[in-house]
Amino acid sequence: MKTHDYELWLERLWKGERRAAARLISQVENNRGRIEIMCQILPRTGQRMILGITGPPGAGKSSLVGAMTHLYRDQKEKVGIVAVDPSSPYSGGAILGDRIRMQSHSTDPGVFIRSMGTRGHLGGVARSTGDVLRILEAAGYERLLLETVGVGQSELEIMELADTVIVVLNPGTGDGIQAIKAGIMEIADIFVVNKADLPGAEHLKNDIEMVLGLNGEKPWRPPVILTSVLDQRGLSELRDQIALHQNYLIQSGKNLLRRKQAFAQEVWYHWEELARQSFAIAWENLRDAEKDLEQENPYRLAEKVWASIVTEETVKHVSFSK
Amino acid sequence: MKTHDYELWLERLWKGERRAAARLISQVENNRGRIEIMCQILPRTGQRMILGITGPPGAGKSSLVGAMTHLYRDQKEKVGIVAVDPSSPYSGGAILGDRIRMQSHSTDPGVFIRSMGTRGHLGGVARSTGDVLRILEAAGYERLLLETVGVGQSELEIMELADTVIVVLNPGTGDGIQAIKAGIMEIADIFVVNKADLPGAEHLKNDIEMVLGLNGEKPWRPPVILTSVLDQRGLSELRDQIALHQNYLIQSGKNLLRRKQAFAQEVWYHWEELARQSFAIAWENLRDAEKDLEQENPYRLAEKVWASIVTEETVKHVSFSK
Repeated sequence: MKTHDYELWLERLWKGERRAAARLISQVENNRGRIEIMCQILPRTGQRMILGITGPPGAGKSSLVGAMTHLYRDQKEKVGIVAVDPSSPYSGGAILGDRIRMQSHSTDPGVFIRSMGTRGHLGGVARSTGDVLRILEAAGYERLLLETVGVGQSELEIMELADTVIVVLNPGTGDGIQAIKAGIMEIADIFVVNKADLPGAEHLKNDIEMVLGLNGEKPWRPPVILTSVLDQRGLSELRDQIALHQNYLIQSGKNLLRRKQAFAQEVWYHWEELARQSFAIAWENLRDAEKDLEQENPYRLAEKVWASIVTEETVKHVSFSK
Repeated sequence: MKTHDYELWLERLWKGERRAAARLISQVENNRGRIEIMCQILPRTGQRMILGITGPPGAGKSSLVGAMTHLYRDQKEKVGIVAVDPSSPYSGGAILGDRIRMQSHSTDPGVFIRSMGTRGHLGGVARSTGDVLRILEAAGYERLLLETVGVGQSELEIMELADTVIVVLNPGTGDGIQAIKAGIMEIADIFVVNKADLPGAEHLKNDIEMVLGLNGEKPWRPPVILTSVLDQRGLSELRDQIALHQNYLIQSGKNLLRRKQAFAQEVWYHWEELARQSFAIAWENLRDAEKDLEQENPYRLAEKVWASIVTEETVKHVSFSK
């Protein structure tokens, strides 16, 4: 893509053109002109809240995202959805099985759905996800939904991009205990007991509230909402609680604090990319110079590689703009 | 711990003292004299194969590990087991629920079980796991088993430490499809269809073999073994296939290749730790110097931080030995 190419696509992005968003996302994901594109997009972002939806596989996160999309579309808001599956190597328009449920939105120009996957390292996913959310915001998507597929360590880190985190659990599945184990109790701003038509929903709600009670008084106490996409139950309550939490974030100043932390985290991810580049260069040099590298002490070798990088010479080879 | 303290513990480790292993693992995990300890342990390691066991939660990995431990103990081999749960913040002797099933070994001095968890970043888990396996090898544990709890991205990366990877699946759970999705088909050296007493075991075996067939001819074709811990079925076949695979690794030279890759990966993990240290220092300096850091462009800021680190001055503050 030559410079004037993406300039044209950016012009079309500012007009909210869906195809321009898809095109620029591909460019950025494939690292073609990524930093130049993102630096132009950056000033048009940071105004919209990011809504994170996480929970164990099969909890009905995608159906819930679908139902929420309907609600926001009824309010005439444009909805941008990013679904992240760190265990999948596939990125693309809408290839996850779950996405099939979203088909009712696939012809709606006011909805943009993007699946993200990777075999790369975690920093890479979080970085790309942040880029994609920014592109969608710059394209005029007002409601940004970020969904993860599982509840592992990777998902927890991706949720750091969200302003409001919704944890979706199911009755009768032992989800309560799993949630505590995986550390998602701590990141939840709102709990959703989904599939509340199934037995045990009230029981799970009580369990969650008990655990929350143990944590003592807090300025924001995460509400526990019973929903059922099947019966359209609890959805407008969920929408209202999201609005309440986002107001709370702004009025308490927590919003700025969260963004400050997210910003530091983001700089780290970018920085790590530079570090990886220079490690790769230094490692290859060392391999060329020494035959039996594997016989050496890996701890000391790491220090040696580090020392070899920290020279003006190496820095020249490391830059985002290349 | 003063120098002569861990010297004494190391002396006891060489004699195979279980308590010395536990003590040194704690020291290393808490980063007290870690590098000094590991540098002494290193020359006594690298001879034993590491056996990785992974698969979805509930597949019966721990029971299988328990049964295999019995087999190896019957052969008078000492067994060291490391169980990694990247979604859990807890590390310790034997605190995972699954470990309860291992109780029959808890009084056997020839068996060492260690649970590893973390809320830190992935590099940290993989690094610590590698350290623990080395300590166990140096203590004379001949059979090293590395078990993970789930099948996410984190688990895949931890399995890179293993020479032989066993993927455990269950009949009738849709595990086949899940396995393909999570990318564990590619890392498996041996498939185990566990709980083969349940219906659908042969069906799952055929599914796996069909997918393997699609991958074309390979020098090592992963066998699919039906096991049942309940009926003691398939266990000695599994042991034999493990031995076959380990012979294959040695005779084909794949072993050296795998270790070469693992070595490079390990140096990267250590190197990343140094990089993180220096990032933290540089970031704090920048925060002190500039008030509205968050208004800046994070991509360019990362380059700025990188440039600021790559000076002799910063390097002085970054070292494993501090």
